Formats: sequence, C-alpha cells, structure tokens
Amino acid sequence: MKVEGKHYRTVWFEDNKLFLIDQNRLPFFFEILETNSYTKTCTFIKEMNVRGAGAIGTTAAFAMALAALEAPESRYLSFIEKAKAEIEATRPTARNLFYATEKVFIAAKTSAQKAIIAAQNIAEEDIAACKKIGEFGSTLIENGWTIETHCNAGWLAFTDIGSALAPIYEAHKSGKKINVLVDETRPRNQGAKLTAWELLNEDIPFAIIPDNAGAFLMSRGKVNMMIVGADRIAANGDTANKIGTFEKAIVAKELGIPFYIAAPSATIDFACKSGEDIPIEYRNQEEVLFTTGLVSKGHTGSVLCAAPGSFAVNPAFDVTPAKYITGIITEKGIFKPNELDSI
Amino acid sequence: MKVEGKHYRTVWFEDNKLFLIDQNRLPFFFEILETNSYTKTCTFIKEMNVRGAGAIGTTAAFAMALAALEAPESRYLSFIEKAKAEIEATRPTARNLFYATEKVFIAAKTSAQKAIIAAQNIAEEDIAACKKIGEFGSTLIENGWTIETHCNAGWLAFTDIGSALAPIYEAHKSGKKINVLVDETRPRNQGAKLTAWELLNEDIPFAIIPDNAGAFLMSRGKVNMMIVGADRIAANGDTANKIGTFEKAIVAKELGIPFYIAAPSATIDFACKSGEDIPIEYRNQEEVLFTTGLVSKGHTGSVLCAAPGSFAVNPAFDVTPAKYITGIITEKGIFKPNELDSI
Repeated sequence: MKVEGKHYRTVWFEDNKLFLIDQNRLPFFFEILETNSYTKTCTFIKEMNVRGAGAIGTTAAFAMALAALEAPESRYLSFIEKAKAEIEATRPTARNLFYATEKVFIAAKTSAQKAIIAAQNIAEEDIAACKKIGEFGSTLIENGWTIETHCNAGWLAFTDIGSALAPIYEAHKSGKKINVLVDETRPRNQGAKLTAWELLNEDIPFAIIPDNAGAFLMSRGKVNMMIVGADRIAANGDTANKIGTFEKAIVAKELGIPFYIAAPSATIDFACKSGEDIPIEYRNQEEVLFTTGLVSKGHTGSVLCAAPGSFAVNPAFDVTPAKYITGIITEKGIFKPNELDSI
Repeated sequence: MKVEGKHYRTVWFEDNKLFLIDQNRLPFFFEILETNSYTKTCTFIKEMNVRGAGAIGTTAAFAMALAALEAPESRYLSFIEKAKAEIEATRPTARNLFYATEKVFIAAKTSAQKAIIAAQNIAEEDIAACKKIGEFGSTLIENGWTIETHCNAGWLAFTDIGSALAPIYEAHKSGKKINVLVDETRPRNQGAKLTAWELLNEDIPFAIIPDNAGAFLMSRGKVNMMIVGADRIAANGDTANKIGTFEKAIVAKELGIPFYIAAPSATIDFACKSGEDIPIEYRNQEEVLFTTGLVSKGHTGSVLCAAPGSFAVNPAFDVTPAKYITGIITEKGIFKPNELDSI
C-alpha cells in the first residue's frame, strides 16, 4: 500500500535483511527498522514494533530465515531449533506465528536459501488471502456507501492490504465513491492512529468518531454497513476482536445495519467450539488512565486523563456471539457464521 | 458533598458574594472562584467553569441576585432587566437557567434582599429534588450490586448530591455495599475526570472503564444496573443525554440489564413530543482529535491522539428512545417512560 505516494509492505525481506515499518512510531513518525539478526527481530515482535496477526506471522517467518543465515555450519540444526523456540516465545497467543515458524523451519533444514523462499511464500500467501478478502468483500459495498470500522485491521496488521479494510480499498480502487467512519477505539486509539493514517495515505474520505457515537450515527442513517477484523473465530462463528466490537455488533443488529467480520480462514480456530473457550486478556490500567500522542512537534508523550488516584479495568478483547454477525468475509468467500465447517 | 473530607456545594452565596468550584480545573486542581459581579458570573457560565443543568440554574439565580445588588438606585429596573437578558444569553439551551432568571427577576423587582432569598430558594429546591431522587433511586439498588454510569450527573452537575449519582450516594450512606463502573465518556472524559473525582472523595469503590467495555462487562455478569442523567426528556420518554447513552441503553436492554434515567422533573419538556424534536449539538472536532489532561505535576495540556491531518465528527448528545429505558427516577417518584403525563 501507499505511504506518501510510495508503495510499501508492512514487513519485507531484501538482500538478506528484514525491514519493517515501526508501528510504535506511527502515526506521528514514519520510520523503517532493519536488521539481519533473528534475536533483534524477536525484540521487534515483543515490543510491538510490528503487530497484527498477519504481520506477526510474516515477521516470524523472516526471523526463522535470518536464523538460518546466521547459523554456524558446525551446529546448524541446533541453532535454528533454538531460534524457533525463541521466536515462538515472543507472542505466544498469535496463531499465525506458529504456522510460520513451523513451515520455515522445515525448509531451513535443507538450506538457508530454502528458508528464505519459504518465508517469502508465507508473505505472499498472506497478501493473496487479503487480496481475495478485498475482492469478495467489495461486492457487498454499494456506490455512495459509508462503512464504519473498529480498531485497525488494515494493511499494517498484515503483510499488505489488510482484512477489514481490504474490501474498502478494493471498492475505492474500482471507482466506488465511499466514505469510512473510523471508531477511535479507546483505549489505545488504533482506529484514530493507524486506520486513519492508512486512509489518509490512500486518499479515502473518512472521519474519526468517538466510540460512543456509533449508535447515534447508525440511527440517523449515516452508516450503511460495518466491517471489522478478528483475532480469533470459534468453530460456531463466535468472534473475538478488539474491545467494543461486541457492543457495536449488538447496536448494528438492533438498528438494522449489516455487520461483517473480515479475516483470513486461518483465523478460524476449529479446536475452539464457541466463544466461551476464548480467553480474554486484561491489560494494564495505565492504557485507560493515560492517553499517548503527540505533545509537541517531534515529541510524543502522554497525559493523565482521569482523576488522580483512580483505578481502571481494561479488558483488551471481547467476544461477539455469532447471532450478531451478518457474515464472515474470508479468502474463500463470504460465509454465514454457522457455515464455517463448510470451509 | 465532600472534598477531602470537608462539605461543599458546587455553587453557593455568602456575604453578598457568589462562590463556585472551578470545574475547568478539576480533577487536577481544586479551586474556588468568587465574585460579586453578575457579568463575571456570566463569563463563568459561558466558559464552563460551572456546567450541568442544576448547577447552571443556581448560578444564574445568584447572578440575578448580584445584578440586583449592583444596580444603581436611579435606574434599578432597567439595570436588572438588562442583566437578565445577558445572563439568559450565556447558555441558551439550558432550561433551568430561564426558570431561575425569571423567578429571581420577579423577586428582585421588590428588593435585592428578596432576590437573594429567591435565589437561595432555587438552590434549596435543586438540592431537595436531588435528595428525593436519591431516596427513590436507592430503593432499586440491592446490597452487593455494581452500577454502571455514563458521563457526570453527580453533584458537580447540580447544586449538590446530583441525579444519576444520587441513588448511589444514598445507597452507600444507608450501608449497602456497592461498586460503580464509570464509563470514561469520550471525548471529554467527564466520567473519568469528574465522576471518578466525586467517587474518590466519597470513598465509594469504583473503576473507570473504556466506553467500549460496557457490553463485554454486562455479558460477563459484572453489571447489575445502569443509571445515567438526562439533558432533556421528551413527553413520550425519549431522552437526550451525553453521546453514548443510546448505545449503552441498547446494549443493556439486549443483555437484560435494567437501564434507568435519573433527573429532576424539570428536565421533562412537555412541549417536546418525542426525541425527534430534540436538536443535537455537534461540537468541534478538536475535542476528539486531542485529549486533555495532566501533562506533568501542576501542568495540564493536551496530546494529539489521532493521525495528523485527520477529520473527526463529534456529536455531543444522542437520543435514547423510551423503549430502551426501564424507568425514570425523579423527585416525585419512579416512572415508566410512557407514564410521564401522570407527573
């Protein structure tokens, strides 16, 4: 996708080096990190310089390839085995990560060059899935529509293109006149920061809205559909995603607004029967009590935006039961949430 | 109510002077403003040093009393007439304001002393109504319950006690063990800033939650009821309140959580047939794009919390249709939204 007119991926591999956009610096600073070290790459994943299921998977794949390049001939296999374990320990809940390390590890047993090819394939697979999601999803979008989205499931969360934003990019590319309402997505504001940044770069009209404004704008006919991403989809269609997704899904159903999940089929966890099996991570209260952003030109920082001495509760995800979901857009087509076993 | 153990009202009158808590400085600084000038008082209302229907009404009443004290004998009547027009121009949508200026103006025609007494009566009426709301509302609250609230309809929004928080204060006073979940209430964070500050001072256990977390916490059995305030209630029970109220009401109904409005009966506008007649104010986008708070010890400021160059849409209120409201708690009792004409 484009950044100031130039094409970029979220993460890429060139001349035996890994490059990635530093998402901790966005949207205020656009900076590229590079490394030829797999341990440094582990740090990038841990520190969330790269985030999002697809982007983490590709980064982990390239980390394995770097390990294969770094491995001394004398103890090649033990070195890449150890590297695999380290990479897998960075973000233990990201399913794509394990898929990636496993696949590249098998190739790496043959040679470092095979590992690089395998990692490149994972990147291309991720992009191809997102492209198909865009094609299928864009058929749902009519000319003149306004689409609301929550959090960031754009190209920054994948290798390129994204999931929830893919149908929007495709509809825009095909000449449909569309508008996007971006939930700011407290407490970390990934909507206002990352999704808005992507849409600015792609020249797609949008407005950021407070998370509180969803029902009001839907009730006034300002929203035609809602598309969001997914962190994990259970076999019955229940979907875990960023906190606030469940609330929006209830409101959309009540007000007659179609509510879609967009995600590669790899996000479906058939071992997980229903949403009740999905654990919900609670994060630290400082994310709620403080807001980070640009303090002055060139400087980021945070403000305390609550009464000093307050406590906060900060569930990071919620689970939307299948009955509130109109459809799930995957690279294999659009499915009803109760049809997932046909995939 | 209490501030660091000492009793305060939001606004009061003593020795021919008006005193009020500067709400623009809360929760980071507790400062009292005082004046013997009605024009200065107008500025306080305009600049939102005082906000909230009840508190504005009382302040306007005292502003009229100050005008009567300031009026030169030679042109007493024309002076207080001009003052009345100026006071009424400060926040033209606040209904309580007009009720207050009218009542004190009539008394002021007799003498400045009568004006002061009339203004004191308005303050006492406001407090008495909130007290009754607390008594009626607290009967709904069971021992051990958790109550969720949105924005600030506490004592800072009235002369004392508050509306949505009144039942909570009364339940706490009567020895019930309760817990409060405070929606942070983006974009201005009146929940995290003002409601949390009140509850800290009253020693009532609470946690701030992101507005996004409501549905999740309700679905996990963490919320027993929700009480919010109201800016205007139409004759059919449709209720205008801070943006996000409508969203919470839909979610509460869907998840089986009782959803109450608490407001003095003066908030009911019988001239307004339904919510469709209530105009919605859109405020400036900077309230969404920037977050204000404490930057460092002793200093407040703001951070840009969105991608630079973004636009935002900022509806300040929404209208909750009567069908989502379990009951309306007033000083005259608790009513179903379709029973308001019996008041």
